[in-house]
Amino acid sequence: MHRRDFVLSLLAAGPAAGRLRLKPRPDPSLQRRSSGRAATSVATRHRDNLRINGDRLNRHLGELSAFGRTDTGTDRVAYSEPDRAGREYVMGLMREAGLEVRIDAGANLIGRRAGRDAARPPILIGSHTDSVPDGGNYDGDVGALGAIEVAQTLAESRTVTRGPLEVVVFSNEEGGLVGSKAMVGELGPAELGVTSRSGKTIRDGIRYLGGDPDRLATARRSRGEVAAYLELHIEQGGTLDEGGINIGVVEGIVGIRDYEVTFEGFANHAGTTPMDRRRDALMAASQLVLAVNRVVTSVPGRQVGTVGRIQAFPGAPNVVPGRVVMTVEIRDLAAEKIDLLARQVIAEGDRIATATGTTVNFHLFSENTPALTDVRVQRLITQAADGLGLSHRALASGAGHDAQDLARIAPVGMIFIPSVGGISHSPREFSRPLDITNGANVLLRTVLAIDAGGLEG
Amino acid sequence: MHRRDFVLSLLAAGPAAGRLRLKPRPDPSLQRRSSGRAATSVATRHRDNLRINGDRLNRHLGELSAFGRTDTGTDRVAYSEPDRAGREYVMGLMREAGLEVRIDAGANLIGRRAGRDAARPPILIGSHTDSVPDGGNYDGDVGALGAIEVAQTLAESRTVTRGPLEVVVFSNEEGGLVGSKAMVGELGPAELGVTSRSGKTIRDGIRYLGGDPDRLATARRSRGEVAAYLELHIEQGGTLDEGGINIGVVEGIVGIRDYEVTFEGFANHAGTTPMDRRRDALMAASQLVLAVNRVVTSVPGRQVGTVGRIQAFPGAPNVVPGRVVMTVEIRDLAAEKIDLLARQVIAEGDRIATATGTTVNFHLFSENTPALTDVRVQRLITQAADGLGLSHRALASGAGHDAQDLARIAPVGMIFIPSVGGISHSPREFSRPLDITNGANVLLRTVLAIDAGGLEG
Repeated sequence: MHRRDFVLSLLAAGPAAGRLRLKPRPDPSLQRRSSGRAATSVATRHRDNLRINGDRLNRHLGELSAFGRTDTGTDRVAYSEPDRAGREYVMGLMREAGLEVRIDAGANLIGRRAGRDAARPPILIGSHTDSVPDGGNYDGDVGALGAIEVAQTLAESRTVTRGPLEVVVFSNEEGGLVGSKAMVGELGPAELGVTSRSGKTIRDGIRYLGGDPDRLATARRSRGEVAAYLELHIEQGGTLDEGGINIGVVEGIVGIRDYEVTFEGFANHAGTTPMDRRRDALMAASQLVLAVNRVVTSVPGRQVGTVGRIQAFPGAPNVVPGRVVMTVEIRDLAAEKIDLLARQVIAEGDRIATATGTTVNFHLFSENTPALTDVRVQRLITQAADGLGLSHRALASGAGHDAQDLARIAPVGMIFIPSVGGISHSPREFSRPLDITNGANVLLRTVLAIDAGGLEG
Repeated sequence: MHRRDFVLSLLAAGPAAGRLRLKPRPDPSLQRRSSGRAATSVATRHRDNLRINGDRLNRHLGELSAFGRTDTGTDRVAYSEPDRAGREYVMGLMREAGLEVRIDAGANLIGRRAGRDAARPPILIGSHTDSVPDGGNYDGDVGALGAIEVAQTLAESRTVTRGPLEVVVFSNEEGGLVGSKAMVGELGPAELGVTSRSGKTIRDGIRYLGGDPDRLATARRSRGEVAAYLELHIEQGGTLDEGGINIGVVEGIVGIRDYEVTFEGFANHAGTTPMDRRRDALMAASQLVLAVNRVVTSVPGRQVGTVGRIQAFPGAPNVVPGRVVMTVEIRDLAAEKIDLLARQVIAEGDRIATATGTTVNFHLFSENTPALTDVRVQRLITQAADGLGLSHRALASGAGHDAQDLARIAPVGMIFIPSVGGISHSPREFSRPLDITNGANVLLRTVLAIDAGGLEG
């Protein structure tokens, strides 16, 4: 079903119809016999009829946007006063949803909902509420509040899950996935000393939010301790919006390789150096900019390659550039493809240097390996979307997310909803209320499907 | 004759040979009848035998280099203490050469030598002694001290010229041809208020050097008041050095047109924006860098085109550049060619913008029109070089010089000598002592040829 059709059917049902219809009283005795045909059928019907409260979720998003609001957008940079205040608000929502709230040593907000079997590892759902400077109100917020809405829907419907559910609002996602790194044991002392955008070190910021940087080991989860991690998020790209597609089933979070490339030629007087006597580093660099594009688009797929920064030295209008420093970034879901493209770009750089009488150096300064989502979780998300009559497509996440850290210890899945115009990290970032509601409903269904044993066998 | 041959013949003659041989006593009665055959023959022989003292000139250059010497090179920025001290030293040399020294209102040092006919307009010769920051000891110095050496040679040989000779050391050449602008009446109040590299305003700097910024009109020369202006200078490019040529006969000082070019695309997340959805301002700018080179080299000639500065915004490795600001500079001796090439580059910019989904703006922020030297002066310089057995070639000056201002009011000529490796504005700037001696001898001969009526009839 296309989004437009879905809108119409919802409007026909009236705004509160879903919620009123979807409060069957669960029968624990039936649910306990979940392998039996009759029990399964009732439990499945219950699950299939359950819907989150879209009005409430979108109202909460509006309320959260007040924290850090600026003239142009939202500034809720991690460890800032608006970040802390926004988290206080979010903890209130968690408590309203019946969650048992705590802050772990990594300053992650965790709201726990018990299941029937306390021995089972919890399903984690969540995202983050910090923003980039001059950001918007959807990146992170949708997934964090969507997860709370799922918990509240379960509470209101008195749905009891087999295992526990934990809603996690990770700390400082935008400043380097800090909270999720802490959770998987990857936050080291060096990173704690880094000064974040708030002006505080990460160590001080964690403390400011109620965490304990000296006891990070207590926040750590190991493989087997998390049943699955699910994250609802805006796409940040324009694929779903342009295609009129409701749900993105994320296949993985791309790997990123960043090089700083330096061409060295010879700086000389622009007036007195004939054209055929120049060793112009910018002539070389410009060829590489075009070569990056050519190499990256030479093979099918969704890989991207970008030169985002460039500077010529000495940088005067009347001096032939003797040195240019630029960045080259390559992203793809397949590590092998990143490797292949990087090798081709480096070969182009060498060829260009030779042809222009310059030298070139590629310095790898940052690398994230691709993080694949669990194919079983992908299938359950797809089934959830189908069950809700939502159109969907598989896609990669070009941006980083806390899910990539969790993928080190647990099966993960990500649910994307459309970003209008593909805009993100901007005050102009926007996702439609109905798309947000759809996404949270897919999250709810997927949680229930996993809880019902969807990853087993 | 190639330089190597000339070296050998000089060495054979011994270092002092030229000077000792070249002190005939001039006979005023003969010289006064300069139109007669016998007189011309004696005067010509006198002129042809006259040589400057190369040892002395090069010793003076070494002494001047002590003012503003740094660990790496020379810093004698205009209006600095080393600049003033260096000028004191230079005034001493002028007085030793028998010149009557004054400082005009534009802070130009002027050393005058009377001729037989005080009513005749003077021939001006000179250059400057200020340097760029971290500069060398040849740019300016060679022409300034070369001119003084010419005057001293005339004094020692008791040569009496028809008209007066003035040695001029222009103030603040490197900071915008300030002294020569004052001399041609082009130094306005706005420029006087500009802060120079010394930290002083140009007004205060002129005063610091002994000029009077409130009486600049007294420094002004009008057309007809200067018989000719000759400037000896290092080439600053590598043409003469690479070609093993002794003397450059400058055809003119190129015109310079500088544009600031801005491409506007759309900044977007490098991870989430597919390659075919980008409006990458740097992809456009890189194509223009290559197009500038292609356009400028598409026609024969010595024109140059340079992109010296470039910056991408916002300038992060993970953001597709939404805006790029770059410079485009075009230089040539022919204003028409600059115009033609600029129009072609702008057309390329428009074409590239259309093809890349960006917009482009060309802002002309600086323009100097070409200044041609006088063809009769060029011919006299050529004859002087021939008479000294020096190889020569005609070339354009790609850099600006005080001569371009003087060209507004008088016939000008410039004599270039080789810069080793074409390096200038650098501590590594170097011209060989013999090349300096050759250049000063050509200057001497050309002065005498003009004085003898070389520009008349």
